[in-house]
Amino acid sequence: MSGPPAAPVVDLNCDLGEGFGIWTLGDDDALLDIISSANVACGFHAGDPNILRRVCEAAVSRDVAIGAQVSYRDLAGFGRRSMDVDATSLTNDVIYQIAALDGFARVAGSRVRYVKVHGALNNRTVHDEHQAAAVVAAVVAYDPALPLLGLPGSALLRHAEQAGLGAVTEAFADRGYTAHANLVPRSQPGALLHDPVEVARRMVRMVMTGRLQSVDGIEVAVSARSICIHGDSPGAVEMMEAVRKALIEAEVEIRAFAP
Amino acid sequence: MSGPPAAPVVDLNCDLGEGFGIWTLGDDDALLDIISSANVACGFHAGDPNILRRVCEAAVSRDVAIGAQVSYRDLAGFGRRSMDVDATSLTNDVIYQIAALDGFARVAGSRVRYVKVHGALNNRTVHDEHQAAAVVAAVVAYDPALPLLGLPGSALLRHAEQAGLGAVTEAFADRGYTAHANLVPRSQPGALLHDPVEVARRMVRMVMTGRLQSVDGIEVAVSARSICIHGDSPGAVEMMEAVRKALIEAEVEIRAFAP
Amino acid sequence: MSGPPAAPVVDLNCDLGEGFGIWTLGDDDALLDIISSANVACGFHAGDPNILRRVCEAAVSRDVAIGAQVSYRDLAGFGRRSMDVDATSLTNDVIYQIAALDGFARVAGSRVRYVKVHGALNNRTVHDEHQAAAVVAAVVAYDPALPLLGLPGSALLRHAEQAGLGAVTEAFADRGYTAHANLVPRSQPGALLHDPVEVARRMVRMVMTGRLQSVDGIEVAVSARSICIHGDSPGAVEMMEAVRKALIEAEVEIRAFAP
Amino acid sequence: MSGPPAAPVVDLNCDLGEGFGIWTLGDDDALLDIISSANVACGFHAGDPNILRRVCEAAVSRDVAIGAQVSYRDLAGFGRRSMDVDATSLTNDVIYQIAALDGFARVAGSRVRYVKVHGALNNRTVHDEHQAAAVVAAVVAYDPALPLLGLPGSALLRHAEQAGLGAVTEAFADRGYTAHANLVPRSQPGALLHDPVEVARRMVRMVMTGRLQSVDGIEVAVSARSICIHGDSPGAVEMMEAVRKALIEAEVEIRAFAP
Repeated sequence: MSGPPAAPVVDLNCDLGEGFGIWTLGDDDALLDIISSANVACGFHAGDPNILRRVCEAAVSRDVAIGAQVSYRDLAGFGRRSMDVDATSLTNDVIYQIAALDGFARVAGSRVRYVKVHGALNNRTVHDEHQAAAVVAAVVAYDPALPLLGLPGSALLRHAEQAGLGAVTEAFADRGYTAHANLVPRSQPGALLHDPVEVARRMVRMVMTGRLQSVDGIEVAVSARSICIHGDSPGAVEMMEAVRKALIEAEVEIRAFAP
Repeated sequence: MSGPPAAPVVDLNCDLGEGFGIWTLGDDDALLDIISSANVACGFHAGDPNILRRVCEAAVSRDVAIGAQVSYRDLAGFGRRSMDVDATSLTNDVIYQIAALDGFARVAGSRVRYVKVHGALNNRTVHDEHQAAAVVAAVVAYDPALPLLGLPGSALLRHAEQAGLGAVTEAFADRGYTAHANLVPRSQPGALLHDPVEVARRMVRMVMTGRLQSVDGIEVAVSARSICIHGDSPGAVEMMEAVRKALIEAEVEIRAFAP
Repeated sequence: MSGPPAAPVVDLNCDLGEGFGIWTLGDDDALLDIISSANVACGFHAGDPNILRRVCEAAVSRDVAIGAQVSYRDLAGFGRRSMDVDATSLTNDVIYQIAALDGFARVAGSRVRYVKVHGALNNRTVHDEHQAAAVVAAVVAYDPALPLLGLPGSALLRHAEQAGLGAVTEAFADRGYTAHANLVPRSQPGALLHDPVEVARRMVRMVMTGRLQSVDGIEVAVSARSICIHGDSPGAVEMMEAVRKALIEAEVEIRAFAP
Repeated sequence: MSGPPAAPVVDLNCDLGEGFGIWTLGDDDALLDIISSANVACGFHAGDPNILRRVCEAAVSRDVAIGAQVSYRDLAGFGRRSMDVDATSLTNDVIYQIAALDGFARVAGSRVRYVKVHGALNNRTVHDEHQAAAVVAAVVAYDPALPLLGLPGSALLRHAEQAGLGAVTEAFADRGYTAHANLVPRSQPGALLHDPVEVARRMVRMVMTGRLQSVDGIEVAVSARSICIHGDSPGAVEMMEAVRKALIEAEVEIRAFAP
């Protein structure tokens, strides 16, 4: 098909709804004004029914897509501790979480439109074939129209593709990349970026060219349909605002990937 | 419309899926062969995702209607302790539970078809207008086509009717009734019935005539679209089998009330 | 015994350790520099083992007395929802909490030195004889040398005295009092005081004279061995610092009530 | 010191108190009549305060030693799922559990007298040096007089010895052993023994000679101060009774290892 080239487009996603009961985390309202996709905690690592409802309604009112941010069942550890959950239990834990959030999304007039994996389960499903397959099995069972948002090259996205699910990649605005296009481990220099101007410039460049400069100064290919910022880090809101502003100035369309 | 009179019809309901993790309670499989409606625990007083999935699939395979048995959030107390939950939180707790179970019902090829309130929340919503209204608000928000199954004369069913929900009454096969058609309190003689033959005879009579003999020997009007037996009491399965057999012999149709 | 009159003495207490997992609440370190007694959450409404350990060690390093702040088992509701817990379960829930905290107090080189009741359980044991007796039974069983810190006139302190426990009363620095020496309900004007200077002046006067001005302008007798400020309200630290400074200037000794 | 040889002595231990709320598991009362040491669940994988109290009182009334059976925080998985808990959190989780149980042991007139590690944490601390050291650090901090009961050759017992703790080994009555004196994996033939007569004969022989016949028919050295039977397996009570009876007939003294 000929015609003018499509305008570049990217999604901005962030973790939301990660308080519990009396406890709060992050500035959900400020972030909802910036992002196009909200990864909403479903109650297993964070999030209670009041929070799920409030975030879903706020997301819908701003036309932000709701995604289920599924996790191990571990409130005390915020889902950040790898667990040897058997495949059947993991599949059912994920179905439970997607479905619970989907209830609030529907009450708010929308639906869960994608799934993202949180914390230790996300890290583990980069390599763990069994747990990756178990998460994918949950999405297939619940609604095979839901795409999975995840790390490029992960077992999770590979299993998603093999199962016929949408597999959407994300880049991390506030993280350095190695020469092999992996994230610089948090224990090493250059892992975390703090300058909103630099971060915004990098993201515009990645969207326009599919390239980033690695921590070693080498150009690496990083192609992502979505950009993630962590909402609970200091300066997160400012950084995300800078990224959003720079993208708009570069005439990049900010749009949720999920239909 | 003229024609032969409709055959009498009644539903048999029972609480199911009330284990948690390694722990089991009741004989779900035996009860599913007897009942027409399963009140499935949703995870707040009992039930974990593995159990929800298993019970939903077993219910669907036997053509038993799945109902959401919603509760206070109280695993340690099995939902049997009245709690002063504010209306907003209660509404959202109920939405969360219905939605989570509905996910497994849909995975199994069906849907949640009604809502029943468990334990202390059920007792409290007999009189507590605020909590009754909060539960009803949850059903209205989630799906106003879902009927509520509950106690005749309860605030819960009154609020359900006022909100335009279906309000379905139940009788208790294994409980004695007072001359005012209330349940004999558990602390008094005649509260619990144990003889399967007598229980079965009473239930057939109630379905055919709308009448029961009270603990005082007086005839009282008890009209119920559904009969409940508690699955975790000793002899529950035998009693329910006797009721079912007697109803079938009396040519009563056993059929779920929910469409 | 003759001699110079004893210097006036008072205790300053505050709720601490009320985060959970990743979530924080209040500024424990700042408050520990001000108070003489720390009501430490024990894990049922807030507090996890890491927090218990950290707060106990910080309290011991500042010579602040550690008290067990016991609650209903209700993380989702922060212990602020009244629950119909039976007496046996409540007694055992309280023993469990005191004992768990006592472990960390001993690891830090001290002991739990008193018990305070949190939230809805505190409100309920003002009037509920059964629950008040159940809490007292727990302290008697665990260690009858532990005093209970509570509201003047409460069933809780009455049962404590009858059981031979120490019963220590507290006043609330940031709350208005009625002409009957009760707290002004939060829904009414004058319930909450915000001016650190006024609050400090009132507390000095209460300690020196046993009197406070009520919201109606009437003098009322309020005698309390301990003064409580809520650490999670905005300005709490500033207000408590003002109270502490004013007490020291008035040559009141700030000292824990528990031996 | 000369004199007649000491009579052979062994301890019998079993996991107890592993219900939660309404749910029960195993026959605690029957097992308490057989064993000399009770590994009591502390609330993290099973056990609630009512159960802890009941089991402690029943153990004391039968002169059975109370041990803290500590676990990962995982009620839904019964502590059977390995978790990447950091060392600090694991140490504090273990202190919390020991202390909570110790409260009930003292209320019952005794004390926690040893520590045993449950489920996945037990399996993991066979090899995981960090988690083994973290558990040992908890016991050292809480009370270095408490011995650890565990698997011969485990990292856990090695760290315990290095830290100066008592390290007590156990053998499994109902399990087959390899020619290297390890347990036959559950997936292989000969892993589980079912014949009470054979099991009893094997245990008497192990106590008298320090030897067992392996699954390959080879004699292997197995020296253990305590014998464990799993209380939740079918026939557990009968098997343990047979072991006890055979030991008594062989004039082996059954006595708790903990002072």
